[in-house]
Amino acid sequence: MLTMPTRYNWLKLQQFCQQVFQKAGVPAGSAAIVAESLIQADLRGVDSHGVVRTPIYLKRVEKNMIDPFAEVEIVSESNATILIDGHNNFGAVIGMNALTLALGKAEQNGAAIVGVKGSNHFGTGAYYAMKAIERDMILLVMSNASQTMPPTGGVRPFIGTNPLAVGVPSNEELPYILDMATSVVARGKIIVSAQKGEDIPFGWAIDKEGNPTTDAQAALEGSVLPLGGAKGYGISMFIDILSGVLTGAGFGKYVNNMYENWNEPQNVGHLFIAVDIKRFLPVEHFKARMDQYIREIKREPKAPGVEEILIPGEIEHRRTVERKKNGIELPVQVVKELDAIGRSYGVSLAEAACQNYSNEESA
Amino acid sequence: MLTMPTRYNWLKLQQFCQQVFQKAGVPAGSAAIVAESLIQADLRGVDSHGVVRTPIYLKRVEKNMIDPFAEVEIVSESNATILIDGHNNFGAVIGMNALTLALGKAEQNGAAIVGVKGSNHFGTGAYYAMKAIERDMILLVMSNASQTMPPTGGVRPFIGTNPLAVGVPSNEELPYILDMATSVVARGKIIVSAQKGEDIPFGWAIDKEGNPTTDAQAALEGSVLPLGGAKGYGISMFIDILSGVLTGAGFGKYVNNMYENWNEPQNVGHLFIAVDIKRFLPVEHFKARMDQYIREIKREPKAPGVEEILIPGEIEHRRTVERKKNGIELPVQVVKELDAIGRSYGVSLAEAACQNYSNEESA
Ligand SMILES: NC(=O)c1ccc[n+]([C@@H]2O[C@H](COP(=O)([O-])OP(=O)(O)OC[C@H]3O[C@@H](n4cnc5c(N)ncnc54)[C@H](O)[C@@H]3O)[C@@H](O)[C@H]2O)c1
Ligand SMILES: NC(=O)c1ccc[n+]([C@@H]2O[C@H](COP(=O)([O-])OP(=O)(O)OC[C@H]3O[C@@H](n4cnc5c(N)ncnc54)[C@H](O)[C@@H]3O)[C@@H](O)[C@H]2O)c1
Repeated sequence: MLTMPTRYNWLKLQQFCQQVFQKAGVPAGSAAIVAESLIQADLRGVDSHGVVRTPIYLKRVEKNMIDPFAEVEIVSESNATILIDGHNNFGAVIGMNALTLALGKAEQNGAAIVGVKGSNHFGTGAYYAMKAIERDMILLVMSNASQTMPPTGGVRPFIGTNPLAVGVPSNEELPYILDMATSVVARGKIIVSAQKGEDIPFGWAIDKEGNPTTDAQAALEGSVLPLGGAKGYGISMFIDILSGVLTGAGFGKYVNNMYENWNEPQNVGHLFIAVDIKRFLPVEHFKARMDQYIREIKREPKAPGVEEILIPGEIEHRRTVERKKNGIELPVQVVKELDAIGRSYGVSLAEAACQNYSNEESA
Repeated sequence: MLTMPTRYNWLKLQQFCQQVFQKAGVPAGSAAIVAESLIQADLRGVDSHGVVRTPIYLKRVEKNMIDPFAEVEIVSESNATILIDGHNNFGAVIGMNALTLALGKAEQNGAAIVGVKGSNHFGTGAYYAMKAIERDMILLVMSNASQTMPPTGGVRPFIGTNPLAVGVPSNEELPYILDMATSVVARGKIIVSAQKGEDIPFGWAIDKEGNPTTDAQAALEGSVLPLGGAKGYGISMFIDILSGVLTGAGFGKYVNNMYENWNEPQNVGHLFIAVDIKRFLPVEHFKARMDQYIREIKREPKAPGVEEILIPGEIEHRRTVERKKNGIELPVQVVKELDAIGRSYGVSLAEAACQNYSNEESA
């Protein structure tokens, strides 16, 4: 095999993923959503949630652990709430359904809370937040996840790194997009430290006996900790309660691990809270206030060594601009896996490669 | 003056506060709410938000910086939202109004989001969360606050330690009540370290030049940091956006400091999100799931040296039981101040003292 290119045009890579999912039997609309959600993550630099997940998503479809034909069902509905059963379709497909219902209901009634059960890993929260912003809505979205973090004082994983995302539109300034795991740091950062043989800061993780550790390898055998001690544990817990306990989805150990459990669907739960800005302030007025807020923060005096004060979502926005222009760089291992998948489904990954990135057009 | 007693019966102390507020011209119903919210904080061990705030609240009334006669106005309303202008009444009075409206609307329409502008310091978030729980509702409540924390990379305070509280009912287990500032720790803990001449952990605070510091005194001259680095900054920021930017209240530097600004009202903003559980699951079913969730967490194996895994609100519940039984211990300085205030309004603090705490009845 010739050396594979490692830099890909984002749009062509998205088409590649979409085609692979379609060839695997996923309906076209759903394949488009899943592919878009993965590429969005890569564009934003959240590589852990990008096309690297294509193989595992496909494998779960192939093993009947995800049902791409399931109808997303409205179980119950009131003026301001909806409960959805995703019946084990793709997380992103169910998530987009939930978002659409939430935005529609918020448009009608001012706000909406949509709970979801019977779902799967839904990717990044920012994917949904960014779509809500386009419709001049504020979105809070959360999901539970399989067990990775101990409760404060515990030894082994009990709660997930349950993500919380919040999106708020602005006018001239970048929108505010917070999208975060409730762990101190992503496990990926500990893996990198272990590979480099470097220590990790105190407070990131515990070893498998539950002792605080700065040894990256011991941390990997132990657990990453919630952000900010008991406060992060508390935040992760309410995300589990609202996404899981309230909706009828799994919670705690009943959210199955996507990589390890091949007997049962994940039964992930999510919660979407949509707020129609214009019920509070005229949208233009609100956006002007957001612009002012963001400008005032960014103009604050900076600590020694700090070049710029950033708002949540700004780093990811810059990465998106850069990657749309220069392409998405993938690790060789990921390229090999995607290439093999492409071959088995008769879709060419090579065609998505950047021929000459400096000339690549951004769309 | 004889030595003043420092331990007080909670109910009598609440009556003392209520009477003082009434004598200061606050309508009876409002005086009762404010007094209750202060005593709840003391009972839960959040002493910084307890009766110690009586003098400053009173002073703001006396200086016309709080208007105890203001009508809380509904500015706009939809099926699922309400915007309230508190017109500068007490924060707790406006907060209770907002809560009542949110719970009523959630009862009717499944969920409600109530935004508040023109308010003041509303005390602890748990005060509202506990009332929502009694009505089988889930509550998320947040408030902005005057500037105390820098943005990540900043030097001086820009955002407040904007609190977030979440309350969820259960059946046999204690309810889940998270109530937290978005700072790493309360400033009070740094004050204590400074008094003892002890260092504080790295990551709690920066000095006034913006450098990380472990020197408690330098930290007090600098700023306490958001919890979990940029994540806590992001959380504090969305609380400011939802409570302030969205509602028309102050945000950032436009939330005035209760202790320092005597020219303008605070213009604090809050946001209440109420969720009617029964729109998702039958309440008894939900509570059984909460009980199971809490039991499973509490049964987790414990790290070395840890006696018990706790859930949010559990520490505060135990303190409440203890303080209802044994009384609320106040610092001598606070006793002196309250006594002086009592004398000036003709209300006796001494009568609220525990005569013999082991025999004190709890109500
Ligand atoms: N679906 C799931 O089960 C699941 C589980 C966990 C995480 N995730 C996803 O993983 C992703 C990564 O999460 P993470 O916590 O590692 O992200 P992160 O720590 O890189 O960033 C968290 C947030 O902080 C902001 N931020 C970072 N530095 C900043 C600075 N200096 N100033 C201002 N803002 C700053 C970012 O813009 C982002 O909004 C998210 O997209 C999340 O949705 C998904
Ligand atoms: N109105 C305002 O402007 C304002 C501003 C800031 C803070 N506050 C109030 O100040 C109070 C104190 O906040 P704080 O952040 O210092 O509180 P804290 O750090 O003492 O507790 C935060 C939360 O963590 C929970 N917790 C602590 N240790 C735990 C453990 N080991 N296991 C499980 N849960 C645990 C507590 O039960 C609580 O819910 C709150 O009541 C808040 O509403 C108000």
